[in-house]
Amino acid sequence: MHGGATSSELGVYVYSAAQVKKAMEVTHYLGGENYVFWGGREGYQSLLNTDMERELDHMARFFEAAVAYKKKIGFNGTLLIEPKPQEPTKHQYDWDAATSANFLRKYGLIDEFKLNIECNHATLSGHSCHHELETARINGLLGNIDANTGDPQVGWDTDQFMMDIGEATLAMLTVIKNGGLAPGGFNFDAKLRRESTDVEDLFIAHIAGMDTLARGLRNAVKLLEDGSLGELVRKRYQSFDTELGAQIEAGKADFDFLEKKAKELGEIKVPSAKQELAEMIFQSAL
Amino acid sequence: MHGGATSSELGVYVYSAAQVKKAMEVTHYLGGENYVFWGGREGYQSLLNTDMERELDHMARFFEAAVAYKKKIGFNGTLLIEPKPQEPTKHQYDWDAATSANFLRKYGLIDEFKLNIECNHATLSGHSCHHELETARINGLLGNIDANTGDPQVGWDTDQFMMDIGEATLAMLTVIKNGGLAPGGFNFDAKLRRESTDVEDLFIAHIAGMDTLARGLRNAVKLLEDGSLGELVRKRYQSFDTELGAQIEAGKADFDFLEKKAKELGEIKVPSAKQELAEMIFQSAL
Amino acid sequence: MHGGATSSELGVYVYSAAQVKKAMEVTHYLGGENYVFWGGREGYQSLLNTDMERELDHMARFFEAAVAYKKKIGFNGTLLIEPKPQEPTKHQYDWDAATSANFLRKYGLIDEFKLNIECNHATLSGHSCHHELETARINGLLGNIDANTGDPQVGWDTDQFMMDIGEATLAMLTVIKNGGLAPGGFNFDAKLRRESTDVEDLFIAHIAGMDTLARGLRNAVKLLEDGSLGELVRKRYQSFDTELGAQIEAGKADFDFLEKKAKELGEIKVPSAKQELAEMIFQSAL
Amino acid sequence: MHGGATSSELGVYVYSAAQVKKAMEVTHYLGGENYVFWGGREGYQSLLNTDMERELDHMARFFEAAVAYKKKIGFNGTLLIEPKPQEPTKHQYDWDAATSANFLRKYGLIDEFKLNIECNHATLSGHSCHHELETARINGLLGNIDANTGDPQVGWDTDQFMMDIGEATLAMLTVIKNGGLAPGGFNFDAKLRRESTDVEDLFIAHIAGMDTLARGLRNAVKLLEDGSLGELVRKRYQSFDTELGAQIEAGKADFDFLEKKAKELGEIKVPSAKQELAEMIFQSAL
Repeated sequence: MHGGATSSELGVYVYSAAQVKKAMEVTHYLGGENYVFWGGREGYQSLLNTDMERELDHMARFFEAAVAYKKKIGFNGTLLIEPKPQEPTKHQYDWDAATSANFLRKYGLIDEFKLNIECNHATLSGHSCHHELETARINGLLGNIDANTGDPQVGWDTDQFMMDIGEATLAMLTVIKNGGLAPGGFNFDAKLRRESTDVEDLFIAHIAGMDTLARGLRNAVKLLEDGSLGELVRKRYQSFDTELGAQIEAGKADFDFLEKKAKELGEIKVPSAKQELAEMIFQSAL
Repeated sequence: MHGGATSSELGVYVYSAAQVKKAMEVTHYLGGENYVFWGGREGYQSLLNTDMERELDHMARFFEAAVAYKKKIGFNGTLLIEPKPQEPTKHQYDWDAATSANFLRKYGLIDEFKLNIECNHATLSGHSCHHELETARINGLLGNIDANTGDPQVGWDTDQFMMDIGEATLAMLTVIKNGGLAPGGFNFDAKLRRESTDVEDLFIAHIAGMDTLARGLRNAVKLLEDGSLGELVRKRYQSFDTELGAQIEAGKADFDFLEKKAKELGEIKVPSAKQELAEMIFQSAL
Repeated sequence: MHGGATSSELGVYVYSAAQVKKAMEVTHYLGGENYVFWGGREGYQSLLNTDMERELDHMARFFEAAVAYKKKIGFNGTLLIEPKPQEPTKHQYDWDAATSANFLRKYGLIDEFKLNIECNHATLSGHSCHHELETARINGLLGNIDANTGDPQVGWDTDQFMMDIGEATLAMLTVIKNGGLAPGGFNFDAKLRRESTDVEDLFIAHIAGMDTLARGLRNAVKLLEDGSLGELVRKRYQSFDTELGAQIEAGKADFDFLEKKAKELGEIKVPSAKQELAEMIFQSAL
Repeated sequence: MHGGATSSELGVYVYSAAQVKKAMEVTHYLGGENYVFWGGREGYQSLLNTDMERELDHMARFFEAAVAYKKKIGFNGTLLIEPKPQEPTKHQYDWDAATSANFLRKYGLIDEFKLNIECNHATLSGHSCHHELETARINGLLGNIDANTGDPQVGWDTDQFMMDIGEATLAMLTVIKNGGLAPGGFNFDAKLRRESTDVEDLFIAHIAGMDTLARGLRNAVKLLEDGSLGELVRKRYQSFDTELGAQIEAGKADFDFLEKKAKELGEIKVPSAKQELAEMIFQSAL
């Protein structure tokens, strides 16, 4: 290999591999339990000059090598991908949880990675933080949470401290459903506003951020112990908790059978989804 | 089964199955070559009252039954899912091409479906139409195109006739790369503006819409025959067209090997991605 | 005048004038105290076929005639414009509070109208509801509030019942600063979700909506009585509560004078804006 | 005055005045014809810690002093405000052209300033560049253009070279309607993509950017000389080119008179706005 313009996209790959190898060794040596791949520039600015398929293939080869090396050195920590839709690129390859899951499934890596969900990245991708956490959870991928927040009307990453008790409560509902996050957890990927220039602001922000998460956890427990919200959801789907429902959910109801059942059914009525009641219950718990 | 409030979410499922069964039979009888599932209300308004995991499981059971029935009656047409991110729901389950692909992979349906990409839905999900087409293509899922357009600054589906020659050219570049769309094709999911009240407007819109696609195809061919844009992309990645590149792409380059190679490499330089040149070449072809 | 295609844009104007005349008379007869102009289609879909300047001139003539007629019949109620950025048009002429204020000032109507701020319209225009209320207030235009809410990540008007205690508290802070809203007030421009199909949902939504506003008012009072937030803001600007500050605010400090003062000043330090503390105080009051 | 934390917001004002004074003198000395106030941080991050009214008053005092100083030193150049909606702030006070015009009118500065419209800022505020240019023009405020472009699906300022012939054509249509821009003009507030690393990319970008504007101007002239688009717009409003229309436009048609006219009118029909035809004519000129 001779360095120079013709060899350089490849060179980036090669250097990156060497760097990740070293960082992974250090993580292992220090007893690290997680290793996050933050793909903040792994996307495109324009499709006109990009071979997206080839770039994704390269990314998959890279992650395969990382998995192999992790096993080789006996590192048992979780490998994590951190979804982010854009900024600085027009399109980042780990756009959101579902996009990342598709990538992992396509390349056979779904059992080797989890996701590190960042709330501010969630809002940038047009989703609520709760949506991204739930999507990660039901794909078996919820591994860690970057506890920050952004303004949903702002199109770049502001990494503010999460202060909204409601948002924290929703996040904690998913964490509890997930049976916790270990070996992952929460970390503050947050910084002071540029205009917060006092030394004490750093303390205020961290204390308020931790209090927000603590209040969120208490609220989530209160909601679960109270049970009204869970009962509301259970009732919505209880028609599936029947013999016919069980057959459908077991994949034993084909179209011929269902057509026969449809003819047997009288007039049906869709049960109320009771969104306003759900919102009232939720707000009352804050 | 007795109809009534308690049985009704299930009832919707049962009735839908009977309806799709009938529609599929009619499609088969008429010699149809495609069958599109337009999931325009299959999502949630609020996560507070929704069991997203159970709903997705139900959707998968439904699609499995559709696939089985298709085979049973000998219908060989393509089954298509049409991604749409939201409206009227807060979150539709077929948000975009990548999200739909993840769903299909998770439930083992990836070989049974293709996607019907609608350009206006693409922009609603924060992507360009070209991005969605490319994502579908490289996931082996590009089946059909709803040729319309929307304003990227507008947050609902306007279903306008595609009039932008540039957008049409990009779409055609992907269609050619895909080796065409058969048995799918283009269809106009477009309507006149409410203010276009003359009878002739209907003709003007369809003629202009078809001309736009035709000009897009001619431009795409021109770009491919000229070759400058393709050559620009080829050069960007040519460092992977080497022995070492081939090893990496074949998955034969582990981290130990790559670290050794990194030490051999001299200073590297990232080749210019030449976006401005690519944009200039593209605009010159319109 | 003979009806027909050539006379019709004018015809719309003429008919609208007759309709508004009648509606205004009825309002006056019934003792109405406000009259809202909801300009939901008064904008453009495309600038290519639109003479925006002429359309705005027409709108101004129309409002002038409405003001004159109001005075003629002795109707003393408030005339209100309701800002909305788009949907169904690409651009509505009353985009937001500032845009509406510019229109009213340009045509000399600023003293004849107030604004009816709708929270969901605020979010559609890229602003918080609080921003629009404050903008209306400091332009002397806050007349009425359509108390609803929308999802800031959704690009069309959903007209949900306002359930967020925080949003209600912010709205009430502005209402108090404004010395109330009379003769305007709050009205629910809100509707149930389509999936809320029980009769009781209508009651739940209205009760919860009213409770939300009531809790918002109590929180706002609590914040004002506590005074910490007000004190934080006062301190931020207290350097202007000096002799020099007073001169500047009175418009008596020209550049020559200020340059001289700059030379006298030692090193300056920007005081912390204390955003995290402000957020903590605010959340603690909810 | 003693420097220190308590005096510092004021201190920023004072220092800024001294700086602008000096910069204005230098501009005058060098024969400058324009002076742009780029208010990139003049807004708020949060309304909780901000007195928006007082800040706007301060901004007005500052601009008044700038106008007075300009006159004092005999500088005849145009003072320009550059609208930008946000980034780095949540809300910049010069959000868009209409918001800036409202500010200038409120404080009696409307005859002293013009606007410097930046296309990328336009898209960030939810408007097309053409909309902002037209809004500035019909408010008598179009003074200069920062000729760049952004991706309408990206929420931060990318300052790309304008390469879209269509966008350039629309901009030029407004410039021609405005009778040119002198003493302002176009300037490239644009930079290379980070990935464009060759020296030649700088030349390619500037050449392509200038060619784009030149092609836009030629297309605009072609459209105006052809006249079809202008005729389409003229016809849309021609019902106002009548005696009754003239009365309305002169403000001589009150509601009583219009009600009488409405009764005389037969059935009316809204003329087609012919958007699809307008789009077809426009695309054919590119």
